[in-house]
Amino acid sequence: MAAEWLWVDGQQAAMVPADDRGLLLADGVFETIRIERRRPSLSHYHLARLVAGLGALNFPHAQHLAQESLERVLGWGCAHTGHEGDAVLRLSVTRGSGPRGYAPPNSATPRVIARLNAGLPKPCPHLRLSTVAINWPDQPYLAGLKLLARTEQILAIMDAQQKGFDDALMRDAQGRLISTASGNLFFRLGDRLITPALTQCGIAGTRREHIITVVGRSCGYSVEETVCELGLLDIVNEVFTCNAISGIRSVASIAHGGQAWSFDDQSAVGRLAPHIHLASSLAL
Amino acid sequence: MAAEWLWVDGQQAAMVPADDRGLLLADGVFETIRIERRRPSLSHYHLARLVAGLGALNFPHAQHLAQESLERVLGWGCAHTGHEGDAVLRLSVTRGSGPRGYAPPNSATPRVIARLNAGLPKPCPHLRLSTVAINWPDQPYLAGLKLLARTEQILAIMDAQQKGFDDALMRDAQGRLISTASGNLFFRLGDRLITPALTQCGIAGTRREHIITVVGRSCGYSVEETVCELGLLDIVNEVFTCNAISGIRSVASIAHGGQAWSFDDQSAVGRLAPHIHLASSLAL
Repeated sequence: MAAEWLWVDGQQAAMVPADDRGLLLADGVFETIRIERRRPSLSHYHLARLVAGLGALNFPHAQHLAQESLERVLGWGCAHTGHEGDAVLRLSVTRGSGPRGYAPPNSATPRVIARLNAGLPKPCPHLRLSTVAINWPDQPYLAGLKLLARTEQILAIMDAQQKGFDDALMRDAQGRLISTASGNLFFRLGDRLITPALTQCGIAGTRREHIITVVGRSCGYSVEETVCELGLLDIVNEVFTCNAISGIRSVASIAHGGQAWSFDDQSAVGRLAPHIHLASSLAL
Repeated sequence: MAAEWLWVDGQQAAMVPADDRGLLLADGVFETIRIERRRPSLSHYHLARLVAGLGALNFPHAQHLAQESLERVLGWGCAHTGHEGDAVLRLSVTRGSGPRGYAPPNSATPRVIARLNAGLPKPCPHLRLSTVAINWPDQPYLAGLKLLARTEQILAIMDAQQKGFDDALMRDAQGRLISTASGNLFFRLGDRLITPALTQCGIAGTRREHIITVVGRSCGYSVEETVCELGLLDIVNEVFTCNAISGIRSVASIAHGGQAWSFDDQSAVGRLAPHIHLASSLAL
Protein backbone atom coordinates (compact mmCIF):
# COMPACT_ATOMS: atom_id res chain seq x y z
CA MET A 1 0.00 0.00 0.00
CA ALA A 2 1.38 3.36 -1.04
CA ALA A 3 2.20 5.97 1.57
CA GLU A 4 -0.63 8.35 2.34
CA TRP A 5 -0.77 11.82 3.88
CA LEU A 6 -3.81 13.73 5.03
CA TRP A 7 -4.11 17.42 5.61
CA VAL A 8 -7.06 19.34 7.06
CA ASP A 9 -7.19 23.16 7.05
CA GLY A 10 -3.46 23.67 6.85
CA GLN A 11 -2.40 20.94 9.28
CA GLN A 12 -1.43 17.32 8.81
CA ALA A 13 -4.40 15.57 10.38
CA ALA A 14 -6.16 12.25 9.86
CA MET A 15 -9.54 13.35 11.20
CA VAL A 16 -12.29 15.78 10.27
CA PRO A 17 -14.95 17.23 12.62
CA ALA A 18 -18.07 15.07 12.58
CA ASP A 19 -20.24 18.16 12.02
CA ASP A 20 -18.60 18.94 8.67
CA ARG A 21 -21.30 19.61 6.09
CA GLY A 22 -19.33 17.66 3.51
CA LEU A 23 -19.94 14.57 5.60
CA LEU A 24 -23.46 15.50 6.73
CA LEU A 25 -24.93 16.58 3.38
CA ALA A 26 -22.25 16.30 0.66
CA ASP A 27 -22.01 20.08 0.73
CA GLY A 28 -18.80 20.62 -1.22
CA VAL A 29 -16.67 19.80 -4.24
CA PHE A 30 -13.43 17.98 -4.98
CA GLU A 31 -10.63 17.57 -7.50
CA THR A 32 -8.24 14.68 -8.04
CA ILE A 33 -4.93 15.86 -9.44
CA ARG A 34 -2.05 13.96 -10.98
CA ILE A 35 1.39 14.95 -9.75
CA GLU A 36 4.31 13.85 -11.88
CA ARG A 37 7.90 14.54 -10.91
CA ARG A 38 6.68 17.05 -8.31
CA ARG A 39 4.59 19.04 -10.76
CA PRO A 40 0.79 19.08 -10.94
CA SER A 41 -0.71 18.20 -14.29
CA LEU A 42 -3.15 20.59 -15.97
CA SER A 43 -3.94 22.46 -12.78
CA HIS A 44 -5.63 25.35 -14.61
CA TYR A 45 -8.44 23.01 -15.71
CA HIS A 46 -8.82 21.80 -12.11
CA LEU A 47 -8.97 25.40 -10.93
CA ALA A 48 -11.64 26.33 -13.47
CA ARG A 49 -13.90 23.43 -12.42
CA LEU A 50 -13.31 24.14 -8.74
CA VAL A 51 -14.37 27.77 -9.23
CA ALA A 52 -17.47 26.67 -11.16
CA GLY A 53 -18.45 24.12 -8.51
CA LEU A 54 -17.99 26.46 -5.56
CA GLY A 55 -19.87 29.15 -7.47
CA ALA A 56 -22.80 26.83 -8.24
CA LEU A 57 -22.98 25.93 -4.54
CA ASN A 58 -23.01 29.64 -3.64
CA PHE A 59 -19.80 29.58 -1.64
CA PRO A 60 -18.80 33.20 -0.99
CA HIS A 61 -15.71 34.40 -2.89
CA ALA A 62 -15.61 31.20 -4.96
CA GLN A 63 -12.78 32.34 -7.22
CA HIS A 64 -10.54 33.39 -4.38
CA LEU A 65 -11.37 30.34 -2.26
CA ALA A 66 -10.66 27.96 -5.14
CA GLN A 67 -7.40 29.60 -6.08
CA GLU A 68 -6.09 29.88 -2.54
CA SER A 69 -7.11 26.31 -1.63
CA LEU A 70 -5.59 24.80 -4.73
CA GLU A 71 -2.34 26.75 -4.43
CA ARG A 72 -1.82 25.80 -0.80
CA VAL A 73 -2.65 22.16 -1.34
CA LEU A 74 -0.50 21.88 -4.46
CA GLY A 75 2.41 23.44 -2.64
CA TRP A 76 2.02 20.99 0.19
CA GLY A 77 1.31 18.00 -2.05
CA CYS A 78 4.23 18.56 -4.39
CA ALA A 79 6.58 18.81 -1.41
CA HIS A 80 5.48 15.42 0.00
CA THR A 81 5.59 13.16 -3.02
CA GLY A 82 8.54 11.06 -1.95
CA HIS A 83 11.70 10.40 -3.93
CA GLU A 84 10.04 9.68 -7.29
CA GLY A 85 7.82 12.74 -7.13
CA ASP A 86 4.70 11.00 -8.51
CA ALA A 87 1.44 11.07 -6.59
CA VAL A 88 -2.32 11.39 -6.66
CA LEU A 89 -3.58 14.44 -4.77
CA ARG A 90 -7.21 14.84 -3.83
CA LEU A 91 -8.46 18.25 -2.73
CA SER A 92 -11.92 18.63 -1.15
CA VAL A 93 -13.49 21.96 -0.23
CA THR A 94 -16.53 21.61 2.03
CA ARG A 95 -18.85 24.24 3.48
CA GLY A 96 -17.24 23.52 6.85
CA SER A 97 -18.95 22.77 10.15
CA GLY A 98 -22.60 23.55 10.66
CA PRO A 99 -25.60 22.89 12.87
CA ARG A 100 -28.49 20.62 11.95
CA GLY A 101 -30.47 21.56 8.84
CA TYR A 102 -29.97 22.08 5.12
CA ALA A 103 -29.37 25.84 5.23
CA PRO A 104 -25.69 26.69 5.78
CA PRO A 105 -25.04 29.02 8.70
CA ASN A 106 -24.00 32.57 7.77
CA SER A 107 -20.83 31.94 9.70
CA ALA A 108 -19.83 28.84 7.68
CA THR A 109 -16.07 28.67 7.15
CA PRO A 110 -15.08 26.39 4.26
CA ARG A 111 -12.84 23.47 5.14
CA VAL A 112 -10.00 22.36 2.87
CA ILE A 113 -9.10 18.67 3.03
CA ALA A 114 -6.29 17.06 1.06
CA ARG A 115 -5.20 13.47 0.62
CA LEU A 116 -1.97 12.49 -1.07
CA ASN A 117 -1.10 8.98 -2.21
CA ALA A 118 2.46 8.44 -3.37
CA GLY A 119 2.94 6.80 -6.74
CA LEU A 120 0.64 6.59 -9.74
CA PRO A 121 -1.57 3.61 -10.57
CA LYS A 122 -0.71 1.36 -13.51
CA PRO A 123 -4.15 0.95 -15.07
CA CYS A 124 -5.16 -1.91 -17.32
CA PRO A 125 -4.74 -0.47 -20.82
CA HIS A 126 -7.81 -2.05 -22.47
CA LEU A 127 -11.11 -1.54 -20.75
CA ARG A 128 -14.04 -3.88 -20.95
CA LEU A 129 -17.21 -1.89 -20.25
CA SER A 130 -20.78 -2.84 -19.54
CA THR A 131 -23.93 -0.77 -19.35
CA VAL A 132 -25.49 -0.79 -15.88
CA ALA A 133 -28.85 -0.47 -14.16
CA ILE A 134 -28.40 3.05 -12.84
CA ASN A 135 -28.37 6.17 -15.02
CA TRP A 136 -27.06 9.68 -14.64
CA PRO A 137 -29.98 11.86 -13.59
CA ASP A 138 -30.60 15.01 -15.63
CA GLN A 139 -29.62 18.07 -13.60
CA PRO A 140 -28.60 20.89 -15.95
CA TYR A 141 -27.99 23.24 -13.03
CA LEU A 142 -25.09 21.09 -11.77
CA ALA A 143 -24.03 19.23 -14.92
CA GLY A 144 -20.27 19.04 -15.45
CA LEU A 145 -19.35 19.83 -11.85
CA LYS A 146 -17.41 17.57 -9.52
CA LEU A 147 -19.56 17.73 -6.38
CA LEU A 148 -19.00 15.45 -3.40
CA ALA A 149 -22.34 13.74 -4.14
CA ARG A 150 -21.34 10.76 -6.31
CA THR A 151 -23.94 8.07 -5.59
CA GLU A 152 -24.66 7.06 -9.18
CA GLN A 153 -21.02 6.44 -10.06
CA ILE A 154 -20.50 4.30 -6.98
CA LEU A 155 -23.50 2.13 -7.86
CA ALA A 156 -22.48 1.98 -11.52
CA ILE A 157 -18.97 0.73 -10.89
CA MET A 158 -20.17 -1.78 -8.30
CA ASP A 159 -22.68 -3.14 -10.82
CA ALA A 160 -20.07 -3.37 -13.60
CA GLN A 161 -17.43 -5.01 -11.42
CA GLN A 162 -19.95 -7.48 -10.03
CA LYS A 163 -20.63 -8.59 -13.63
CA GLY A 164 -16.87 -8.98 -14.21
CA PHE A 165 -16.22 -5.79 -16.20
CA ASP A 166 -13.59 -3.09 -15.62
CA ASP A 167 -15.91 -0.10 -15.58
CA ALA A 168 -19.47 0.96 -16.31
CA LEU A 169 -20.75 2.60 -19.46
CA MET A 170 -23.09 5.16 -17.89
CA ARG A 171 -26.06 6.57 -19.78
CA ASP A 172 -28.64 9.24 -19.10
CA ALA A 173 -32.34 8.62 -18.45
CA GLN A 174 -32.98 8.60 -22.22
CA GLY A 175 -30.35 5.91 -22.71
CA ARG A 176 -27.79 8.18 -24.33
CA LEU A 177 -24.10 7.49 -23.74
CA ILE A 178 -22.52 9.90 -21.23
CA SER A 179 -19.35 8.55 -19.57
CA THR A 180 -17.83 5.67 -17.69
CA ALA A 181 -18.07 5.67 -13.88
CA SER A 182 -14.52 6.97 -13.59
CA GLY A 183 -13.87 8.90 -16.77
CA ASN A 184 -15.12 10.66 -19.88
CA LEU A 185 -15.88 8.96 -23.18
CA PHE A 186 -14.61 9.67 -26.67
CA PHE A 187 -15.44 8.02 -29.98
CA ARG A 188 -13.38 8.24 -33.15
CA LEU A 189 -15.12 8.17 -36.53
CA GLY A 190 -12.50 8.70 -39.24
CA ASP A 191 -10.78 11.96 -38.36
CA ARG A 192 -13.55 13.08 -36.02
CA LEU A 193 -13.44 12.75 -32.25
CA ILE A 194 -16.93 12.75 -30.76
CA THR A 195 -17.62 13.15 -27.02
CA PRO A 196 -20.99 13.26 -25.25
CA ALA A 197 -22.34 16.75 -24.52
CA LEU A 198 -22.54 17.25 -20.75
CA THR A 199 -25.24 19.91 -20.59
CA GLN A 200 -27.63 17.71 -18.58
CA CYS A 201 -25.39 15.46 -16.47
CA GLY A 202 -21.90 13.99 -16.14
CA ILE A 203 -18.59 15.45 -15.01
CA ALA A 204 -16.58 17.65 -17.36
CA GLY A 205 -13.16 16.07 -16.88
CA THR A 206 -9.90 17.96 -17.14
CA ARG A 207 -8.54 15.61 -19.84
CA ARG A 208 -11.79 15.90 -21.78
CA GLU A 209 -11.39 19.68 -21.74
CA HIS A 210 -7.76 19.38 -22.78
CA ILE A 211 -8.65 17.16 -25.75
CA ILE A 212 -11.50 19.45 -26.80
CA THR A 213 -9.58 22.71 -26.52
CA VAL A 214 -6.00 21.74 -27.39
CA VAL A 215 -4.90 18.18 -28.04
CA GLY A 216 -7.59 16.92 -30.41
CA ARG A 217 -6.91 19.53 -33.05
CA SER A 218 -3.13 19.49 -32.57
CA CYS A 219 -3.20 15.73 -33.27
CA GLY A 220 -5.16 16.27 -36.49
CA TYR A 221 -8.73 15.56 -35.36
CA SER A 222 -11.86 17.64 -35.33
CA VAL A 223 -13.65 17.43 -31.98
CA GLU A 224 -17.43 17.54 -31.44
CA GLU A 225 -19.47 17.62 -28.26
CA THR A 226 -22.86 16.18 -29.12
CA VAL A 227 -25.69 13.82 -28.18
CA CYS A 228 -24.43 10.22 -28.45
CA GLU A 229 -27.05 7.53 -28.95
CA LEU A 230 -26.26 3.85 -28.40
CA GLY A 231 -26.35 3.30 -32.16
CA LEU A 232 -23.16 5.32 -32.47
CA LEU A 233 -21.31 2.20 -31.29
CA ASP A 234 -22.25 0.48 -34.57
CA ILE A 235 -20.30 2.93 -36.70
CA VAL A 236 -17.33 4.26 -34.72
CA ASN A 237 -13.77 3.03 -35.33
CA GLU A 238 -12.41 3.47 -31.85
CA VAL A 239 -13.58 4.20 -28.30
CA PHE A 240 -11.50 5.55 -25.43
CA THR A 241 -11.89 7.04 -21.97
CA CYS A 242 -9.89 9.62 -20.10
CA ASN A 243 -9.43 10.89 -16.59
CA ALA A 244 -6.92 12.96 -14.68
CA ILE A 245 -5.05 10.07 -13.11
CA SER A 246 -5.06 7.25 -15.65
CA GLY A 247 -4.97 9.43 -18.75
CA ILE A 248 -6.29 7.93 -21.99
CA ARG A 249 -7.33 4.28 -22.17
CA SER A 250 -8.64 2.23 -25.06
CA VAL A 251 -12.01 0.55 -24.72
CA ALA A 252 -11.70 -3.01 -26.00
CA SER A 253 -15.35 -4.01 -25.66
CA ILE A 254 -18.77 -2.82 -24.58
CA ALA A 255 -21.56 -5.14 -23.44
CA HIS A 256 -25.21 -4.07 -23.29
CA GLY A 257 -27.73 -6.77 -22.45
CA GLY A 258 -27.30 -9.41 -25.17
CA GLN A 259 -25.41 -7.02 -27.49
CA ALA A 260 -21.64 -6.60 -27.63
CA TRP A 261 -19.24 -4.38 -29.53
CA SER A 262 -15.49 -4.80 -29.74
CA PHE A 263 -12.83 -2.37 -30.90
CA ASP A 264 -9.29 -3.10 -32.10
CA ASP A 265 -8.21 0.25 -33.43
CA GLN A 266 -6.12 2.35 -31.02
CA SER A 267 -4.72 4.92 -33.40
CA ALA A 268 -6.22 7.99 -31.69
CA VAL A 269 -5.12 6.72 -28.29
CA GLY A 270 -1.62 6.29 -29.64
CA ARG A 271 -1.55 9.83 -31.00
CA LEU A 272 -3.20 11.61 -28.05
CA ALA A 273 -1.67 9.79 -25.09
CA PRO A 274 1.77 11.43 -25.14
CA HIS A 275 0.13 14.88 -24.83
CA ILE A 276 -2.49 14.24 -22.19
CA HIS A 277 -0.59 14.91 -18.94
CA LEU A 278 0.93 18.30 -19.55
CA ALA A 279 2.70 19.64 -16.45
CA SER A 280 1.52 22.94 -14.99
CA SER A 281 3.62 25.50 -13.29
CA LEU A 282 2.99 25.63 -9.55
CA ALA A 283 1.86 29.25 -9.81
CA LEU A 284 -1.76 29.26 -10.95
CA MET B 1 -26.93 27.02 21.81
CA ALA B 2 -28.29 23.64 22.88
CA ALA B 3 -25.96 20.98 24.21
CA GLU B 4 -24.60 18.63 21.57
CA TRP B 5 -23.08 15.15 21.72
CA LEU B 6 -21.30 13.25 18.98
CA TRP B 7 -20.72 9.55 18.78
CA VAL B 8 -18.64 7.63 16.23
CA ASP B 9 -18.66 3.83 16.04
CA GLY B 10 -19.70 3.29 19.61
CA GLN B 11 -17.55 5.97 21.23
CA GLN B 12 -18.18 9.57 22.12
CA ALA B 13 -15.98 11.34 19.58
CA ALA B 14 -16.06 14.67 17.79
CA MET B 15 -14.01 13.59 14.79
CA VAL B 16 -14.34 11.20 11.87
CA PRO B 17 -11.47 9.74 9.78
CA ALA B 18 -10.80 11.95 6.76
CA ASP B 19 -10.90 8.87 4.49
CA ASP B 20 -14.54 8.13 5.30
CA ARG B 21 -16.46 7.51 2.09
CA GLY B 22 -19.40 9.47 3.46
CA LEU B 23 -17.20 12.54 3.37
CA LEU B 24 -15.32 11.62 0.18
CA LEU B 25 -18.28 10.60 -2.01
CA ALA B 26 -21.51 10.90 0.01
CA ASP B 27 -21.52 7.10 0.22
CA GLY B 28 -24.15 6.55 2.91
CA VAL B 29 -27.56 7.40 4.34
CA PHE B 30 -28.98 9.19 7.35
CA GLU B 31 -32.06 9.61 9.53
CA THR B 32 -33.07 12.50 11.78
CA ILE B 33 -35.19 11.28 14.68
CA ARG B 34 -37.33 13.18 17.17
CA ILE B 35 -36.89 12.13 20.79
CA GLU B 36 -39.61 13.23 23.17
CA ARG B 37 -39.46 12.49 26.87
CA ARG B 38 -36.69 9.97 26.24
CA ARG B 39 -38.64 8.04 23.63
CA PRO B 40 -37.95 8.03 19.88
CA SER B 41 -40.88 8.97 17.69
CA LEU B 42 -41.99 6.62 14.90
CA SER B 43 -38.72 4.74 14.82
CA HIS B 44 -40.16 1.88 12.76
CA TYR B 45 -40.57 4.25 9.78
CA HIS B 46 -36.99 5.43 10.21
CA LEU B 47 -35.85 1.81 10.30
CA ALA B 48 -37.73 0.94 7.12
CA ARG B 49 -36.20 3.84 5.19
CA LEU B 50 -32.73 3.07 6.56
CA VAL B 51 -33.01 -0.53 5.36
CA ALA B 52 -34.20 0.64 1.95
CA GLY B 53 -31.36 3.15 1.61
CA LEU B 54 -28.61 0.77 2.67
CA GLY B 55 -30.09 -1.87 0.38
CA ALA B 56 -30.16 0.50 -2.61
CA LEU B 57 -26.50 1.34 -1.96
CA ASN B 58 -25.66 -2.39 -1.84
CA PHE B 59 -24.42 -2.38 1.74
CA PRO B 60 -24.03 -6.02 2.81
CA HIS B 61 -26.60 -7.22 5.39
CA ALA B 62 -28.61 -3.99 5.07
CA GLN B 63 -31.46 -5.14 7.31
CA HIS B 64 -29.19 -6.25 10.12
CA LEU B 65 -26.90 -3.22 9.81
CA ALA B 66 -29.84 -0.80 9.90
CA GLN B 67 -31.50 -2.47 12.85
CA GLU B 68 -28.35 -2.80 14.92
CA SER B 69 -27.18 0.77 14.16
CA LEU B 70 -30.53 2.31 14.97
CA GLU B 71 -30.98 0.32 18.18
CA ARG B 72 -27.55 1.22 19.49
CA VAL B 73 -27.85 4.87 18.61
CA LEU B 74 -31.38 5.18 20.01
CA GLY B 75 -30.27 3.56 23.25
CA TRP B 76 -27.37 5.98 23.52
CA GLY B 77 -29.39 9.00 22.38
CA CYS B 78 -32.33 8.44 24.69
CA ALA B 79 -29.94 8.13 27.64
CA HIS B 80 -28.31 11.51 26.92
CA THR B 81 -31.26 13.81 26.38
CA GLY B 82 -30.86 15.91 29.52
CA HIS B 83 -33.47 16.53 32.16
CA GLU B 84 -36.38 17.28 29.83
CA GLY B 85 -35.75 14.24 27.65
CA ASP B 86 -36.38 16.04 24.32
CA ALA B 87 -33.78 15.99 21.59
CA VAL B 88 -33.01 15.69 17.89
CA LEU B 89 -30.92 12.64 17.04
CA ARG B 90 -29.21 12.28 13.72
CA LEU B 91 -27.89 8.86 12.67
CA SER B 92 -25.58 8.48 9.66
CA VAL B 93 -24.37 5.16 8.29
CA THR B 94 -21.49 5.51 5.84
CA ARG B 95 -19.59 2.88 3.85
CA GLY B 96 -16.65 3.56 6.19
CA SER B 97 -13.06 4.29 5.24
CA GLY B 98 -11.75 3.54 1.80
CA PRO B 99 -8.91 4.18 -0.63
CA ARG B 100 -9.16 6.50 -3.63
CA GLY B 101 -11.77 5.63 -6.25
CA TYR B 102 -15.50 5.14 -6.59
CA ALA B 103 -15.57 1.36 -6.03
CA PRO B 104 -15.86 0.48 -2.34
CA PRO B 105 -13.18 -1.90 -1.07
CA ASN B 106 -14.35 -5.43 -0.31
CA SER B 107 -13.16 -4.86 3.22
CA ALA B 108 -15.33 -1.75 3.79
CA THR B 109 -16.67 -1.62 7.33
CA PRO B 110 -19.68 0.69 7.68
CA ARG B 111 -19.30 3.58 10.10
CA VAL B 112 -22.12 4.68 12.40
CA ILE B 113 -22.12 8.36 13.34
CA ALA B 114 -24.66 9.98 15.66
CA ARG B 115 -25.29 13.57 16.68
CA LEU B 116 -27.64 14.53 19.46
CA ASN B 117 -28.92 18.05 20.09
CA ALA B 118 -30.82 18.56 23.33
CA GLY B 119 -34.20 20.23 23.07
CA LEU B 120 -36.64 20.50 20.16
CA PRO B 121 -36.91 23.52 17.86
CA LYS B 122 -39.97 25.80 18.09
CA PRO B 123 -40.71 26.27 14.40
CA CYS B 124 -42.65 29.16 12.96
CA PRO B 125 -46.17 27.77 12.57
CA HIS B 126 -47.10 29.39 9.23
CA LEU B 127 -44.71 28.88 6.37
CA ARG B 128 -44.23 31.25 3.48
CA LEU B 129 -42.86 29.28 0.53
CA SER B 130 -41.36 30.26 -2.79
CA THR B 131 -40.50 28.22 -5.84
CA VAL B 132 -36.77 28.21 -6.59
CA ALA B 133 -34.35 27.92 -9.49
CA ILE B 134 -33.20 24.37 -8.80
CA ASN B 135 -35.35 21.27 -9.30
CA TRP B 136 -35.29 17.75 -7.97
CA PRO B 137 -33.64 15.59 -10.62
CA ASP B 138 -35.53 12.46 -11.71
CA GLN B 139 -33.79 9.37 -10.34
CA PRO B 140 -36.35 6.58 -9.90
CA TYR B 141 -33.65 4.17 -8.70
CA LEU B 142 -33.04 6.27 -5.57
CA ALA B 143 -36.35 8.17 -5.19
CA GLY B 144 -37.68 8.34 -1.64
CA LEU B 145 -34.36 7.49 0.03
CA LYS B 146 -32.50 9.69 2.47
CA LEU B 147 -28.98 9.52 1.07
CA LEU B 148 -26.17 11.76 2.29
CA ALA B 149 -26.14 13.51 -1.11
CA ARG B 150 -28.45 16.49 -0.58
CA THR B 151 -27.14 19.21 -2.91
CA GLU B 152 -30.48 20.28 -4.40
CA GLN B 153 -32.15 20.89 -1.04
CA ILE B 154 -29.23 22.99 0.18
CA LEU B 155 -29.41 25.18 -2.91
CA ALA B 156 -33.20 25.37 -2.73
CA ILE B 157 -33.36 26.58 0.87
CA MET B 158 -30.53 29.06 0.28
CA ASP B 159 -32.43 30.46 -2.70
CA ALA B 160 -35.73 30.74 -0.78
CA GLN B 161 -34.17 32.31 2.30
CA GLN B 162 -32.24 34.78 0.18
CA LYS B 163 -35.57 35.93 -1.27
CA GLY B 164 -36.97 36.30 2.26
CA PHE B 165 -39.08 33.13 2.42
CA ASP B 166 -39.12 30.40 5.10
CA ASP B 167 -38.60 27.42 2.81
CA ALA B 168 -38.52 26.41 -0.85
CA LEU B 169 -41.32 24.82 -2.81
CA MET B 170 -39.33 22.26 -4.77
CA ARG B 171 -40.51 20.92 -8.09
CA ASP B 172 -39.30 18.27 -10.52
CA ALA B 173 -37.83 18.91 -13.96
CA GLN B 174 -41.37 18.97 -15.42
CA GLY B 175 -42.41 21.66 -12.91
CA ARG B 176 -44.59 19.37 -10.81
CA LEU B 177 -44.82 20.02 -7.06
CA ILE B 178 -42.74 17.56 -5.02
CA SER B 179 -41.80 18.85 -1.54
CA THR B 180 -40.27 21.70 0.40
CA ALA B 181 -36.51 21.65 1.00
CA SER B 182 -37.00 20.32 4.52
CA GLY B 183 -40.29 18.44 4.43
CA ASN B 184 -43.07 16.72 2.51
CA LEU B 185 -46.10 18.45 1.05
CA PHE B 186 -49.81 17.77 1.52
CA PHE B 187 -52.82 19.49 -0.02
CA ARG B 188 -56.38 19.27 1.29
CA LEU B 189 -59.28 19.40 -1.14
CA GLY B 190 -62.49 18.89 0.81
CA ASP B 191 -62.07 15.58 2.63
CA ARG B 192 -59.18 14.48 0.44
CA LEU B 193 -55.52 14.75 1.38
CA ILE B 194 -53.28 14.77 -1.68
CA THR B 195 -49.51 14.33 -1.55
CA PRO B 196 -47.02 14.24 -4.44
CA ALA B 197 -46.06 10.77 -5.62
CA LEU B 198 -42.34 10.20 -4.99
CA THR B 199 -41.61 7.58 -7.64
CA GLN B 200 -39.09 9.77 -9.50
CA CYS B 201 -37.52 11.97 -6.83
CA GLY B 202 -37.93 13.39 -3.33
CA ILE B 203 -37.60 11.89 0.13
CA ALA B 204 -40.36 9.71 1.55
CA GLY B 205 -40.62 11.25 5.01
CA THR B 206 -41.62 9.32 8.11
CA ARG B 207 -44.54 11.70 8.85
CA ARG B 208 -45.70 11.47 5.26
CA GLU B 209 -45.78 7.67 5.61
CA HIS B 210 -47.60 7.96 8.93
CA ILE B 211 -50.29 10.23 7.43
CA ILE B 212 -50.69 7.97 4.39
CA THR B 213 -50.87 4.70 6.29
CA VAL B 214 -52.52 5.65 9.60
CA VAL B 215 -53.35 9.19 10.58
CA GLY B 216 -55.06 10.53 7.46
CA ARG B 217 -57.81 7.93 7.51
CA SER B 218 -58.18 7.94 11.29
CA CYS B 219 -58.81 11.70 11.10
CA GLY B 220 -61.51 11.23 8.48
CA TYR B 221 -59.62 11.94 5.26
CA SER B 222 -58.93 9.90 2.18
CA VAL B 223 -55.25 10.08 1.18
CA GLU B 224 -53.90 9.99 -2.38
CA GLU B 225 -50.33 9.90 -3.67
CA THR B 226 -50.42 11.38 -7.15
CA VAL B 227 -48.86 13.75 -9.67
CA CYS B 228 -49.37 17.35 -8.46
CA GLU B 229 -49.26 20.07 -11.10
CA LEU B 230 -48.85 23.72 -10.16
CA GLY B 231 -52.51 24.33 -11.06
CA LEU B 232 -53.54 22.28 -8.04
CA LEU B 233 -52.75 25.36 -5.95
CA ASP B 234 -55.73 27.14 -7.57
CA ILE B 235 -58.27 24.68 -6.16
CA VAL B 236 -56.99 23.31 -2.84
CA ASN B 237 -58.37 24.52 0.51
CA GLU B 238 -55.25 24.02 2.58
CA VAL B 239 -51.55 23.26 2.22
CA PHE B 240 -49.23 21.86 4.86
CA THR B 241 -45.79 20.33 5.23
CA CYS B 242 -44.43 17.72 7.58
CA ASN B 243 -41.13 16.40 8.77
CA ALA B 244 -39.82 14.28 11.62
CA ILE B 245 -38.68 17.11 13.84
CA SER B 246 -41.13 19.98 13.30
CA GLY B 247 -44.19 17.82 12.66
CA ILE B 248 -47.04 19.40 10.68
CA ARG B 249 -46.98 23.04 9.68
CA SER B 250 -49.49 25.15 7.76
CA VAL B 251 -48.38 26.84 4.59
CA ALA B 252 -49.68 30.43 4.63
CA SER B 253 -48.52 31.46 1.18
CA ILE B 254 -46.72 30.29 -1.95
CA ALA B 255 -44.96 32.61 -4.39
CA HIS B 256 -44.01 31.59 -7.93
CA GLY B 257 -42.62 34.30 -10.17
CA GLY B 258 -45.34 36.97 -10.31
CA GLN B 259 -48.03 34.57 -9.01
CA ALA B 260 -49.03 34.11 -5.37
CA TRP B 261 -51.42 31.90 -3.47
CA SER B 262 -52.45 32.29 0.16
CA PHE B 263 -54.21 29.84 2.44
CA ASP B 264 -56.14 30.55 5.66
CA ASP B 265 -57.71 27.21 6.38
CA GLN B 266 -55.86 25.07 8.92
CA SER B 267 -58.50 22.52 9.73
CA ALA B 268 -56.54 19.45 8.60
CA VAL B 269 -53.44 20.64 10.43
CA GLY B 270 -55.55 21.06 13.57
CA ARG B 271 -56.90 17.54 13.30
CA LEU B 272 -53.69 15.75 12.32
CA ALA B 273 -51.11 17.52 14.46
CA PRO B 274 -51.93 15.84 17.81
CA HIS B 275 -51.30 12.40 16.25
CA ILE B 276 -48.14 13.03 14.27
CA HIS B 277 -45.40 12.33 16.82
CA LEU B 278 -46.36 8.91 18.15
CA ALA B 279 -43.76 7.54 20.53
CA SER B 280 -42.13 4.22 19.63
CA SER B 281 -40.95 1.63 22.04
CA LEU B 282 -37.18 1.43 22.22
CA ALA B 283 -37.25 -2.18 21.02
CA LEU B 284 -37.57 -2.11 17.23
